[in-house]
Amino acid sequence: MSQTVDLVADLGEGFGTYTLGEDRELLDIVSSANIACGFHAGDPDIMDRTVAECVRRGVGIGAHPSFPDLRGFGRRAMDLTAEEVRTDTLYQLGALSAFAAYHGTRVSHIAPHGRLGNLVATRADYADAVADAAFRADPSLIVLAQDGELARAAAERGLGVAIVGIADRAYQPDGTLVPRSQPGAVLHAPAVIVERTVRMVCEGVIETVAGTDVAIQADTVLLHGDNPGAVALARLIRKELTTAGVRIAPLAEVLAARQDGRKAERSLT
Amino acid sequence: MSQTVDLVADLGEGFGTYTLGEDRELLDIVSSANIACGFHAGDPDIMDRTVAECVRRGVGIGAHPSFPDLRGFGRRAMDLTAEEVRTDTLYQLGALSAFAAYHGTRVSHIAPHGRLGNLVATRADYADAVADAAFRADPSLIVLAQDGELARAAAERGLGVAIVGIADRAYQPDGTLVPRSQPGAVLHAPAVIVERTVRMVCEGVIETVAGTDVAIQADTVLLHGDNPGAVALARLIRKELTTAGVRIAPLAEVLAARQDGRKAERSLT
Amino acid sequence: MSQTVDLVADLGEGFGTYTLGEDRELLDIVSSANIACGFHAGDPDIMDRTVAECVRRGVGIGAHPSFPDLRGFGRRAMDLTAEEVRTDTLYQLGALSAFAAYHGTRVSHIAPHGRLGNLVATRADYADAVADAAFRADPSLIVLAQDGELARAAAERGLGVAIVGIADRAYQPDGTLVPRSQPGAVLHAPAVIVERTVRMVCEGVIETVAGTDVAIQADTVLLHGDNPGAVALARLIRKELTTAGVRIAPLAEVLAARQDGRKAERSLT
Amino acid sequence: MSQTVDLVADLGEGFGTYTLGEDRELLDIVSSANIACGFHAGDPDIMDRTVAECVRRGVGIGAHPSFPDLRGFGRRAMDLTAEEVRTDTLYQLGALSAFAAYHGTRVSHIAPHGRLGNLVATRADYADAVADAAFRADPSLIVLAQDGELARAAAERGLGVAIVGIADRAYQPDGTLVPRSQPGAVLHAPAVIVERTVRMVCEGVIETVAGTDVAIQADTVLLHGDNPGAVALARLIRKELTTAGVRIAPLAEVLAARQDGRKAERSLT
Repeated sequence: MSQTVDLVADLGEGFGTYTLGEDRELLDIVSSANIACGFHAGDPDIMDRTVAECVRRGVGIGAHPSFPDLRGFGRRAMDLTAEEVRTDTLYQLGALSAFAAYHGTRVSHIAPHGRLGNLVATRADYADAVADAAFRADPSLIVLAQDGELARAAAERGLGVAIVGIADRAYQPDGTLVPRSQPGAVLHAPAVIVERTVRMVCEGVIETVAGTDVAIQADTVLLHGDNPGAVALARLIRKELTTAGVRIAPLAEVLAARQDGRKAERSLT
Repeated sequence: MSQTVDLVADLGEGFGTYTLGEDRELLDIVSSANIACGFHAGDPDIMDRTVAECVRRGVGIGAHPSFPDLRGFGRRAMDLTAEEVRTDTLYQLGALSAFAAYHGTRVSHIAPHGRLGNLVATRADYADAVADAAFRADPSLIVLAQDGELARAAAERGLGVAIVGIADRAYQPDGTLVPRSQPGAVLHAPAVIVERTVRMVCEGVIETVAGTDVAIQADTVLLHGDNPGAVALARLIRKELTTAGVRIAPLAEVLAARQDGRKAERSLT
Repeated sequence: MSQTVDLVADLGEGFGTYTLGEDRELLDIVSSANIACGFHAGDPDIMDRTVAECVRRGVGIGAHPSFPDLRGFGRRAMDLTAEEVRTDTLYQLGALSAFAAYHGTRVSHIAPHGRLGNLVATRADYADAVADAAFRADPSLIVLAQDGELARAAAERGLGVAIVGIADRAYQPDGTLVPRSQPGAVLHAPAVIVERTVRMVCEGVIETVAGTDVAIQADTVLLHGDNPGAVALARLIRKELTTAGVRIAPLAEVLAARQDGRKAERSLT
Repeated sequence: MSQTVDLVADLGEGFGTYTLGEDRELLDIVSSANIACGFHAGDPDIMDRTVAECVRRGVGIGAHPSFPDLRGFGRRAMDLTAEEVRTDTLYQLGALSAFAAYHGTRVSHIAPHGRLGNLVATRADYADAVADAAFRADPSLIVLAQDGELARAAAERGLGVAIVGIADRAYQPDGTLVPRSQPGAVLHAPAVIVERTVRMVCEGVIETVAGTDVAIQADTVLLHGDNPGAVALARLIRKELTTAGVRIAPLAEVLAARQDGRKAERSLT
């Protein structure tokens, strides 16, 4: 059975004179980008350049909205109302959309960043706020999420939902991530991470900390580029997936392929 | 001859807990709004509320981009590159567009604010940056400008251009404004301002400081709402224009009417 | 028995072109000011002007540090580390100190603002962070606090502690405030507020929601100036306290008088 | 004749998660630091850590105030009033002072950054604003400047003035720098830069672009640390100065030694 998966990374996370991450290298590896929108990182010049580079390479463009906390890189919780989450999301999504339009394309997906990204998995009000903003701004947007409230809120509105698999994180038997605060939450051995990624994509399962497998439907795999080692690993993951016969494609194609697969299944029945 | 004109004001210029201007009153008087986009004033919540109020009343929605200077309210010159002006404009225009989309409408026009607004009249590079951003983001946008570089740059790209008349400012014989630094630059007598407005709209002329008339094609009239007196004057201007048989309508209708008028003229020849 | 009390209000809470509160009127009523330091409100120009006005009138100058959240006016909780609270406090306290030095005086006290102000009453780590910053920056600083962790942390270091009484808030039998979320938490009748203030200062007790009295040692009374009615009430409170024989004086004098009172008591024994 | 000179570098120019420059290495080479105060770079945590490291090594602490433009790194001109320059300077100087006090020391000097640093050399109003702020905040502050308006304004008020020599910049026959916009403005050959530095410090002259020498009294030499090569060069400069018998010491000692030298000269006459 032929598989299609997206590879995504957080990009455009510099600010002004500051740079962060190996964007140039990653852009040649990923098929989609989560682009910072100025609230935790990024600025209009960086957004413009990052979108232009994505368009040049056919990389899908995603909004990466955050709590408004540049100094804290969006990693600190802020006690926003759901209304504020909704309007902050609209603002950032809209800002990125203009750069996409300028370069002749559209924003394809949205993926909340950092602490906001954590909270939308469990806080229904925040999840509904983000999904509502995305749906009414552009109902063709795909929402990138882990299993949880955001995936639920997006699906309820008829938005496309892409589940992200994180190969360098340990999973619990219920399919959720081991919290970062626990030992062993983050995996480091490249060979292990590559093997888990290939299995996750090709077999639809990942081994949990309990030693058992859990089913996971990963439409996209999150890659990192915060250091040269991370880029090398990202490159290796792409290579091994390709070797295993997996096609790498932007999110929209992955979701369309999944849809086709289901139709095919149904027609076989 | 039946006339159509737009009435526009700067709106949504509060920030967080701060309010500025009599938005609620002005919204019942104007047909278009220049809405702050967060760089000199405004924030996502205020933008959302202001756009919602505009939609409710059929008021046209315009982006009011600025230099990034909240503390200086966009009134202080900043030595940005033209590239930075272009990307800052895209960012702000895009942000507002998401709120318009959320509330089921579109941004109709763009009008640079404050010092940026002054500079685009004379700096060709800034004017081209703003017009380029607007055109590639949405070629149906109308650019609100005084005669000058921005009007030129917008027209060159085929963007609609709406000329703004400022009835409480003194004009020079060449049709430009008397600079604020000179005495008499700003008029204060309500009766005089109303009379000038009606003449400008109905007869297409305004009396200059030299006592002579100069031709002015005002597609829209800029109103103020920074104090109760300003709101009363704005209301009076609307009333007197209506009494004079002028139809008040959003910018898009004004430009369409002007277009029809020209066609009619041509067919009469 | 002669009493001395300080009257304090939050001042300098405008930003850029925005104004907030009736500073000019309040400055003639209070003996101390909590001055915004730029994180929730205030900017260098406003700080300079506010400090200058305080110096002119002999009003004591206090730092009013906040979470870094201008849009949220410091009212939204942010998940800062205690280290960040310590360094944010130093930054804001230091900034204000320069304006005090410029105008020939010193910062006399520190009073955390908004949500930070709430949290230091109950979070020991935040309280220690603020007290540590204050003590090492200037051990002569007075810490303005309600009973709670900040008062504890300040006293442990030998910092002067001034307890603030809030006459328009309902108290619980244990001497803590009724939370704002509960009905009746905020009192509105001017006559009641004035009477409670005078009793609190002259008799050292305040009536609780249970109808019983609770002892409260109020070194300072918090006044408001966010509307004309608030200013009128503040003026009335000052007048009634004076009529009752209470001397209004800045915090340093109040604490010194309290000290003297204790010595006098001891010598009488 | 024994010489004393200070070595200074811009430090603490990261922000939040972003780092910039090789601070750790430079701290072992310089005797003084210009520390970013949050307007062009730096934040409270970084200021705290940088001051602590300076104290540990006996490195003199200087405020490096800037235009308020984090995204532009203080390199873009802003049309501030002189009053705004004065209050922005006070704010930043004060903020740094609190960290110095916390770590048991004082701010020794002030050196405007970037575009503000350029403008205070030629704009008398900005120069007076900075010097006035510095003098009234702390008359013992040393002002680091090139020849020009800031040096004049500081000297007029009786502030200590330290002239900075920039060994990797070309000088004109009148002792001013060749503007960066001209070819050859910045020198790159390490051997040349080292030789010019030693000559500038030991002989009090520097060769100009005309081939002639011009007198320069360099109390301090500006070093860079923005890349490993720059750090190696900085280390070499320190080594060669030491080899030439020059003593490296913080600014206060350099100015005191210069004062002593003058007294000695006078007593010999």
